[in-house]
Amino acid sequence: MTATQDLTAFLARLQYSDLPDAVIARTEDLFLDWLASVLAGRHEHPIPLFERYATRMGPADGRSKRINHGSFTTPYFAALVNGAASHVVEQDDLHNSSVLHPATVVFPAALAAAQDLGSSGQELILASVAGYEAGIRIGEFLGRSHYRIFHTTATVGTLAAAVAVGKLMQFNASGFTHLLGSAGTQAAGLWEFLRDAADSKQLHTAKAAADGLLAAYLTESGLTGAQNILEGPQGLAAGMSSDADAKWLNDGLGTRWALTETSFKFHASCRHTHPAADALLDLMQREHLTADDIETVTARVHQGAIDVLGRVDVPQSIHQAKFSMGAVLGLIAVYGSASLVEFRDHALTDPRVSAFRERVSMVLEPEVDNAYPQRWLGRVTVTTKDGRTLHGATDEPKGDPGNTLTRPELEDKFRRLVAFSDAGDAQQVDAWINAVWSLHTQADLRTLF
Amino acid sequence: MTATQDLTAFLARLQYSDLPDAVIARTEDLFLDWLASVLAGRHEHPIPLFERYATRMGPADGRSKRINHGSFTTPYFAALVNGAASHVVEQDDLHNSSVLHPATVVFPAALAAAQDLGSSGQELILASVAGYEAGIRIGEFLGRSHYRIFHTTATVGTLAAAVAVGKLMQFNASGFTHLLGSAGTQAAGLWEFLRDAADSKQLHTAKAAADGLLAAYLTESGLTGAQNILEGPQGLAAGMSSDADAKWLNDGLGTRWALTETSFKFHASCRHTHPAADALLDLMQREHLTADDIETVTARVHQGAIDVLGRVDVPQSIHQAKFSMGAVLGLIAVYGSASLVEFRDHALTDPRVSAFRERVSMVLEPEVDNAYPQRWLGRVTVTTKDGRTLHGATDEPKGDPGNTLTRPELEDKFRRLVAFSDAGDAQQVDAWINAVWSLHTQADLRTLF
Repeated sequence: MTATQDLTAFLARLQYSDLPDAVIARTEDLFLDWLASVLAGRHEHPIPLFERYATRMGPADGRSKRINHGSFTTPYFAALVNGAASHVVEQDDLHNSSVLHPATVVFPAALAAAQDLGSSGQELILASVAGYEAGIRIGEFLGRSHYRIFHTTATVGTLAAAVAVGKLMQFNASGFTHLLGSAGTQAAGLWEFLRDAADSKQLHTAKAAADGLLAAYLTESGLTGAQNILEGPQGLAAGMSSDADAKWLNDGLGTRWALTETSFKFHASCRHTHPAADALLDLMQREHLTADDIETVTARVHQGAIDVLGRVDVPQSIHQAKFSMGAVLGLIAVYGSASLVEFRDHALTDPRVSAFRERVSMVLEPEVDNAYPQRWLGRVTVTTKDGRTLHGATDEPKGDPGNTLTRPELEDKFRRLVAFSDAGDAQQVDAWINAVWSLHTQADLRTLF
Repeated sequence: MTATQDLTAFLARLQYSDLPDAVIARTEDLFLDWLASVLAGRHEHPIPLFERYATRMGPADGRSKRINHGSFTTPYFAALVNGAASHVVEQDDLHNSSVLHPATVVFPAALAAAQDLGSSGQELILASVAGYEAGIRIGEFLGRSHYRIFHTTATVGTLAAAVAVGKLMQFNASGFTHLLGSAGTQAAGLWEFLRDAADSKQLHTAKAAADGLLAAYLTESGLTGAQNILEGPQGLAAGMSSDADAKWLNDGLGTRWALTETSFKFHASCRHTHPAADALLDLMQREHLTADDIETVTARVHQGAIDVLGRVDVPQSIHQAKFSMGAVLGLIAVYGSASLVEFRDHALTDPRVSAFRERVSMVLEPEVDNAYPQRWLGRVTVTTKDGRTLHGATDEPKGDPGNTLTRPELEDKFRRLVAFSDAGDAQQVDAWINAVWSLHTQADLRTLF
C-alpha cells in the first residue's frame, strides 16, 4: 500500500462513531469560527463581485445557501461565494504545520453539498473531519517548498474540499482515489498577487471550495481521475514541490486528529504576524512600555514569514495592511489590539501607526525557522528610546492548540465579527451560536441558518 | 516595458481592421475544425457527465448554447461543456512550438461569451485571434520543462480563454493585466492522469475554458489580479517552469500571426504520433509494403513524445489507444488510416493491430528532439521480414502549416466527424459549413447554429 492508498482507505472507512467527543466538539468550534468569518466578510471587497457572478451564472434558486446574500442557489455557487467570503477578514483558522487554512475551503463545500444532499449535522461533521484530516496531511506532504510559490489553501484546499464532499457522498476507497485525481489536477493558486494587494486570495478560496465540490459531483457520476495524483511522476508533488515527503500522507491516521491541532486566529491579520505580535504585546506589558517608548522592533521570524510578508512595506489597502508586519505591530503597540476594528479605523490612517511601522524590521531567525512549520515561535527584539535592548518571546501564540480559545472566547469573537459587519442582532447571534453548538443533533441543515 | 506589458498593450489595441484577410479566413477554418470536434465528441464518455453537471448546477436557460445538448444556459456552463466535448475525439488543432491545443479552450469560452454579450461574428473572430496569439506565446514562454509535467492546454488554456473573453469585453491594457493575473493563478492540469487512461483531459479543457471565462467576467466587474503573474518571482514561470524565456511573450506582435502556424489534425490520435505515422505511411507506399512485410518499426522521436506516450503499452480504452504509438502505427500499417472510424472499430479488437503494436518501439532521436517543438519531424526505421532496413521521414506532417488542409479538405473532415456521431444530416452539415464560412459577416451568433 502506498501512503496515498492508506489515506483513501482511511477516508472510506471513517465513521462518525470513530470520532472522539473532543474532535466532534472541536469541529463545532471551528464551524462557528468559520461562520463568524463568512458573516464578517459580507460587505468587504471583492465579495459582492462573487455574489454578482453567482447571480449572473447560476440559477435563482436551489437548496444551498449563500450565507451572506441570504438566498439559495446550487451547491457550486454556494461553495464559491461562501468560500470567497470566509477568508477576506483574515480571521479564519490555520493549521500550523501544513500552513493550510482548512475552514475556508472545507466548510463552504461541505455545507453547500450537505444542504443539497439533505445530509444531517453528524454527516456534515464527519465530512468536515475527513476534509481536515486529508487536507492537513496533503499540505504537510507538499512541504515548505510548495508554500514558497503556491498558496497552499488554494492548491491543497481544492483536495480538502473535494474530500469533504466525497465523504458526504459516502465514497469508497476507489472513489476517493478518483476524487483526489480530479481535484488534484485542478489545484492552483500562486502567491504572486500578494505584492500587488490584488484580490486573488478570495478567488483562491472561492475556487478551491467550488472546484473541490465540482470534482466530487463529477466523480460521483463516473468521472475517473489519476490513481496517483499526489506521489506520481507527473503528479502534484512532481510539479509543485521539491521537498515532498509521503510519510505525512498517512501519518497517524485514526489516532492523530490533525483537526484538533488547528489554530484559531485572535488578531485579524496574516497568521505569520501573530507570533511577533504576541511576543511584542507580552514584552510591552511586562516592561510597561508604550509605543512612544520604543525606538525599533526587530521581528525575528521564519523564512515563510519573509516570503509572504516581505514585500509589503507601505500597505495600500486594509487587506494589505494585514500582511504588513509593521502595520500589525504598530496597531499592537498603539492600541494593544489588532482586531477588525483597529484595522478598519486605524491601520492606514493613524500617523502613530505608520510612524511605528517604519521602525519595524524583520530578520530571519534560525531558531524560529528550524521550529517552523510545526511550531510558530514569536521572537522580537526591542530597542527603547532610553537605550535599552529588550527581548520578547512567545512559544504558543494565542489561538494555538496549547493556548486555544475556549467556547466563551469563541462566542465573544463570533459576536465581535457579526457586529463588525452588522450581520445580525443579539437574538439572531444567540440563535446562530445555539444552532452550531447543537450541530451534532441537527437533522436538516437547510433550515439551520 | 516588460514583455508581459508589451503583450497586454498589443491585446488592448488589436482591432479587426488590423487582421490580414488570411488570418480572418484561417480563424474561420479553425472554428469549423473545432465545431467538427465538438459535434463528433457528443456521445463520447465522459461528455454526458459534464452535461449532467451543467444541468444540475446551472440554470435551465440562458443565451449561450451547449452545442452537443442543443440547449441554452449561462456562458460559464456552455464554456464548460463545449470545452469538454471538443477535445475528446483528439481531432482538434495544435500549435507546434507552444504544444497548445488552442481551439478547444479559446472557442468554447469565446463563443459562449459572444452569445451572452450579443457580439458579432467579427468580434468573435477578433477575440479568438487575441486568445490564440496570447495563448501560443505564453505556451512558448513556459517552455518544454512546463510541458513535461503540466498539460499546457489546461494551464495556458485558462489564460488563452480568458484573453478571448476579455477582448469581447474590450478590455484595455490594465484590464488584460488584471485578467492574466486572475486567470494565471487558476492555471492547473497535470499529465499524471495519462498513465491510468483517466478522464482528466476533458476536465482540463472544460475547466480551462470555463475558468478563463470566469476570470474575465470577474475582472470586468472589478476583481484585481497580480500584475506580473507570468514573469514574477511567485508567478507561473517561477512555480511551473525551469526554462521559461520572456522573449516569446512579445515575439513578433502584430507581424507574426501565430494563429496561422496552427496545425490541423489529420489522424485521430495524439499529435505526438503523427510525424511517425506520416513517415511510416510514406515509406510503406514508397516501398509497396503491407503490415505483414514488416518485422519491426522504431519511431525515432523527441523527448516530449516519450513523456506523453511512453507509458501506454497495452491500451485499455479507445481514448488511450490514441496515445499508444504502437496502436496508431498498427492502424496505419493495417488500414492505411487512423481516423475516428478505425479507432472505434479496430484499435482494441483487431489482432493484426495488436500484433503490429508489439513490434513498435520508440527511441529518442537527437535530430528530432533538437528541432522540437518548433518543428515536429517524423523519422521511422523499419526492418522487414526479408531482412531489409528501411528509413522513412517526413518534415511536415499532414496538417502542419506548410502541409495544411484546404477548405475542401476541412469540409470533408467536418462531414466525416459529424457522420461519426450522427450529429446532423447533409442539409444541416451544409448549413453549418456555410454559417462558418460567413462568420465574418454574422451579426448575431445566438442563432448561428
